[in-house]
Amino acid sequence: MKIGIIGAGSLGLLYGGYLATEHAVTMFPRSLEQAEKLCEHGITVCGENCFQVNVLSTMDVSALNEQDVIFVTVKQYHLMSIVNMLKNIESSIPLVFLQNGMGHLTLLETLPQQIILVGTVEHGATRKNEMTVSHNGVGKTNIAFFCGHSDLLLKFFSSQPEQFKFVHHDHYELMLLHKCFANAMINPLTAILKVKNGELIRNSFYYKIFQSLFEELISLFPQLDREAMYRSVKNLCLSTKENESSMLKDIKKGSKTEIDAILGYMLGKASEREQHVPIMTAIYQIVKGMELDGTIK
Amino acid sequence: MKIGIIGAGSLGLLYGGYLATEHAVTMFPRSLEQAEKLCEHGITVCGENCFQVNVLSTMDVSALNEQDVIFVTVKQYHLMSIVNMLKNIESSIPLVFLQNGMGHLTLLETLPQQIILVGTVEHGATRKNEMTVSHNGVGKTNIAFFCGHSDLLLKFFSSQPEQFKFVHHDHYELMLLHKCFANAMINPLTAILKVKNGELIRNSFYYKIFQSLFEELISLFPQLDREAMYRSVKNLCLSTKENESSMLKDIKKGSKTEIDAILGYMLGKASEREQHVPIMTAIYQIVKGMELDGTIK
Repeated sequence: MKIGIIGAGSLGLLYGGYLATEHAVTMFPRSLEQAEKLCEHGITVCGENCFQVNVLSTMDVSALNEQDVIFVTVKQYHLMSIVNMLKNIESSIPLVFLQNGMGHLTLLETLPQQIILVGTVEHGATRKNEMTVSHNGVGKTNIAFFCGHSDLLLKFFSSQPEQFKFVHHDHYELMLLHKCFANAMINPLTAILKVKNGELIRNSFYYKIFQSLFEELISLFPQLDREAMYRSVKNLCLSTKENESSMLKDIKKGSKTEIDAILGYMLGKASEREQHVPIMTAIYQIVKGMELDGTIK
Repeated sequence: MKIGIIGAGSLGLLYGGYLATEHAVTMFPRSLEQAEKLCEHGITVCGENCFQVNVLSTMDVSALNEQDVIFVTVKQYHLMSIVNMLKNIESSIPLVFLQNGMGHLTLLETLPQQIILVGTVEHGATRKNEMTVSHNGVGKTNIAFFCGHSDLLLKFFSSQPEQFKFVHHDHYELMLLHKCFANAMINPLTAILKVKNGELIRNSFYYKIFQSLFEELISLFPQLDREAMYRSVKNLCLSTKENESSMLKDIKKGSKTEIDAILGYMLGKASEREQHVPIMTAIYQIVKGMELDGTIK
């Protein structure tokens, strides 16, 4: 298959790297400099084993229309800046969106493509340089059809190797919500407290806030199984206990975070339901303030 | 006058230093080593001008009964460990307590002394070493009688120099509450956000949390003038905008903080009134968790 990948951050490089072992991958990065480097050096994925693959790379968006499927791996807050580019892609080409949060669903509804999938990523990946990504944690990719359907794509996903597995889900909304809920629990708190994921459970005082935040969040989603959700988030904290969340990394770097895609979306839900969520609100404001603090210093 | 000072941290050294310029001061520090150093070198106070004074210093608590008045400058959370020592001081000797918070008032009720004063400190002071204190900010000391009365002491306080002024207040509870309220607003937030006092006003997101916290706090004290209190705390943030709060300093050093004396007291009030104060509660838990985090790392 001819696979296009929009975005060449940690996720773009990881998906480009793995998929290029069997397919013809074309990367669409943001800078000409990175495009040239990717053409010359390919992508190197470093994990338990390291491997290097050749890829094409271009800034020429017309090449998007030559792809069989396109993965969109930019951050949620960058989607708006590429929406016109996406609208010009032929409507027959399936798009796969790999963003955190759920706020972008309304944007996906405006796209002309007949087949759109959304995915949540459970891999750990860190961009080392413009051509190299470190695959820190082997997880899986959850995917679901947002609109349309394709047996061919399902077959393509099911044929991926064990260390880069795709799992198909029937309900995209529930699938995204699970991820968004877990992100809303873990990311902002770890970013504020400057701790690894496991500390939210280990430190008895942080754990109390974790529990209060859970109460506020779960109250917004009566459709979720309360006990299962709690177990799931707690287990995620434990299984990633030595990890720093992406939001903590962003705050440390002084980068923009995904707080609006994650907790901002949840606050929108609370507002729709006219529910008072003081802890979520304060946590949101602290992270927004920290972002601002990083830029005004 | 013969003045005893229990505790030789930043406040103890500051009060010992200034009062020893006109009076016979005896310091009662916690370690023999510091007692010896103070006897040998006296106290050095560094501010706009630096000066050095001679003091006595001893670990012999029987010398407490030779004093005309005794200042207690230990942190609130150390009061419990000296309560037996205080109970053995002759009941005719006035005691002056200079702690943050209000939780210690119940302890003061158990003391035998006929004259007890409480004070709040608006000076900025940092202990440089066991004999030296830096007087960073010239403020004043507010004092009020907790029990008993003494015209002699009032005269003593009113005769202190401008750069070490005492101001007498009629209502000890209101006086302490003003300080405790301001501390509850500024100290925990700056400790969590790792910012100077002024940032709480300057950063628009932090300011929102500041306002939400104010709403929760003021709801606990219908007797306070809402607008006046808000102005007062906001002005304090501005007038000390380049200062780091004591709680931020404590968290940075990995020391115990005064969170229980300050926000813990406020949470007790909320619990008495059966009022739900989620932001205060979360802020309290974060600071307690940070204290724990500092010790379990």
